[in-house]
Amino acid sequence: MTDPLNPRMGATIPSPVMEARRWLEGVRFEPDRPLINVSQAAPMEAPPEGLRRAIAEAAINDSSAHLYGPVLGLPELRAEIASQWSTAYGGDIAADQVAITQGCNQAFCAAMATLAGEGDEVIVPTPWYFNHAMWLSMQGIRTVPLVTGDSLVPEVQRAASLITGRTRAIVLVTPNNPAGVEYPAQLLGDFRTLCRRHGIALVVDETYRDFDSRLGAPHELFADPHWDDTLIHLYSFSKAYRLTGHRVGALIAGRGRLAEVEKFLDTVAICPNQLGQRAALWGMRNLGKWLAREREEVLSRRAAIEAGLSALPGWSLLAAGAYFAYARHPYGLPSDRLARRLVNEAGVLLLPGTMFRPPAEMQGRDEVRIAFANADRAGLATLFERLGAFCP
Amino acid sequence: MTDPLNPRMGATIPSPVMEARRWLEGVRFEPDRPLINVSQAAPMEAPPEGLRRAIAEAAINDSSAHLYGPVLGLPELRAEIASQWSTAYGGDIAADQVAITQGCNQAFCAAMATLAGEGDEVIVPTPWYFNHAMWLSMQGIRTVPLVTGDSLVPEVQRAASLITGRTRAIVLVTPNNPAGVEYPAQLLGDFRTLCRRHGIALVVDETYRDFDSRLGAPHELFADPHWDDTLIHLYSFSKAYRLTGHRVGALIAGRGRLAEVEKFLDTVAICPNQLGQRAALWGMRNLGKWLAREREEVLSRRAAIEAGLSALPGWSLLAAGAYFAYARHPYGLPSDRLARRLVNEAGVLLLPGTMFRPPAEMQGRDEVRIAFANADRAGLATLFERLGAFCP
Repeated sequence: MTDPLNPRMGATIPSPVMEARRWLEGVRFEPDRPLINVSQAAPMEAPPEGLRRAIAEAAINDSSAHLYGPVLGLPELRAEIASQWSTAYGGDIAADQVAITQGCNQAFCAAMATLAGEGDEVIVPTPWYFNHAMWLSMQGIRTVPLVTGDSLVPEVQRAASLITGRTRAIVLVTPNNPAGVEYPAQLLGDFRTLCRRHGIALVVDETYRDFDSRLGAPHELFADPHWDDTLIHLYSFSKAYRLTGHRVGALIAGRGRLAEVEKFLDTVAICPNQLGQRAALWGMRNLGKWLAREREEVLSRRAAIEAGLSALPGWSLLAAGAYFAYARHPYGLPSDRLARRLVNEAGVLLLPGTMFRPPAEMQGRDEVRIAFANADRAGLATLFERLGAFCP
Repeated sequence: MTDPLNPRMGATIPSPVMEARRWLEGVRFEPDRPLINVSQAAPMEAPPEGLRRAIAEAAINDSSAHLYGPVLGLPELRAEIASQWSTAYGGDIAADQVAITQGCNQAFCAAMATLAGEGDEVIVPTPWYFNHAMWLSMQGIRTVPLVTGDSLVPEVQRAASLITGRTRAIVLVTPNNPAGVEYPAQLLGDFRTLCRRHGIALVVDETYRDFDSRLGAPHELFADPHWDDTLIHLYSFSKAYRLTGHRVGALIAGRGRLAEVEKFLDTVAICPNQLGQRAALWGMRNLGKWLAREREEVLSRRAAIEAGLSALPGWSLLAAGAYFAYARHPYGLPSDRLARRLVNEAGVLLLPGTMFRPPAEMQGRDEVRIAFANADRAGLATLFERLGAFCP
């Protein structure tokens, strides 16, 4: 028993990723049958050598890489994002509308801290990214589930019907975590119009933007000269340049909101870590072609998982994109029990749908998320074999 | 105007450190009269070469230094802290009672998130560390000021009189920020007894422990076999090894509380940055003697500031220790106005006492904090000259 305990924290679920890791404790995987870990969107290899050398060079020769920097981040990195994003999205984004955070999760927490407090409401499509729901829960903010159908694409009309006087924001993740769905540009525009009409924020988490199957701007939100009255954009450097261990993300919003974000980040972070920011900047300036090839590889893995899951008897692929496939399994047992059994009996770690939905949504029992981009094509082939051979 | 705005965030003060940095904008300092910046406890030089090389080596050769790690931190670092702290404090601290955080500010936020929510109360001696008050403010937690006299040492009896049914913790910083005071071991023991009797937590932030003028354990709290029912200890690697830009801190508490801390850190950080953790571990294993010399240097600067401020007409040194001197100035103008004028007229950046007290406490108008450890003895001599020559 932990006393005193903030009841909001007590009512928040434990970290699903750490819970899943604990399922591995004491389980032995034979060398000829290693674990296939598709639980977390996490590159398995180090960043390219040039980037590693750039980090090492900064560590040795750049004193400022070891010392405090501005709360909102390295000015050169903020400017680089503003410039590249303005081009990519066809809009005007200034460096002082960009904040750097210790990863994209923190960008979400910072955005929400400026928007909503105890008793407020935030609308989030289900299945949702569990860390979003966890932050809102521990803050005493009500996460209002926006149920989606089999397409897993949220509907604007249904969202409109959920807005109350306490609603402060709608959160969209595209390409989606956990479902992989790439939301159409028009849909995002319609959500923006809805949010603007109600004076609430539209938070768009584009952590997986670099692996979108569509070329060109995935939406036109930034092309609106008044984007900053409604839109808050979130980004992560973790996936693009394999920097998960460096914790660098970004938040783009209006200047007034960034002044509030600065209060939060000063208190929670003081500043983003300096070497990680230099790594992200080096990546943005030097790894464009490398990243394009990474994207091609992820898209080819996506094709492989689409083909492989379609061929698995009884399985139904609901969606796939970016790092994730979201599928319905045929085994008739709850997905959280299935996931634990797959560790022991199939040497596969994936996350059950129950982790991505509130308990009232029973669909999660039949669903699993597969972070397929973690596995190469040989690994995916083995994954399909093991799932096909699993007997519930 | 920022809309919607969480009113708790709107009511929170802006970052004092960033506000002070903005005072420098547009101010020109001649090369023969550079700015003396004693505003922030921030080493001005890079860590020693061996540590920089260790970071570079990990960046090049250790893939895991770029990838996600456990939420609660690198197991070797947690074990190293447990071992060194058990010896230093004469108590039993296990590795699974240690969490690594993205800096000590985040350790404070994590601890508080497990303890208190909207409407709860936390007792903090004044003058206080502003980031503590900011976090509590944005969380809707009432920060109850524990007024201290000229000694700046909090009194247990006065704290006891402030405890209500909503009190969740007492927070002590020792050696103190902003005042530099080293709290006696007996005082900390008495606070622990008070907290235990009321079933509230005692949070002790020892960010500056490595620069304590006393040798040996600064308190006996960990020697109590039941320390983990009441005590939460916070630490920072920023000052000891000049790692401010790496953002690595630690939180030591009972296992039950760490399970709650893990929820918070998973959501806000996912994991501490990996290179910074390796840097901290290398420092702990290799820089003991170097740190002892750093401490001697800081103590000699402390002697210099004690002598220098005592000799300044009208000034009154209230306390000095670790990185900070806290003093009363003689100029009869509010310290926030004084601080801005000192930038322009004396080339000195220090923080006004108003930043360390709630507005109702008028003492802050006459006080300033000087982060003296940032300046070498020549710099301190220049500081005294400039303060002595200042005409209000």
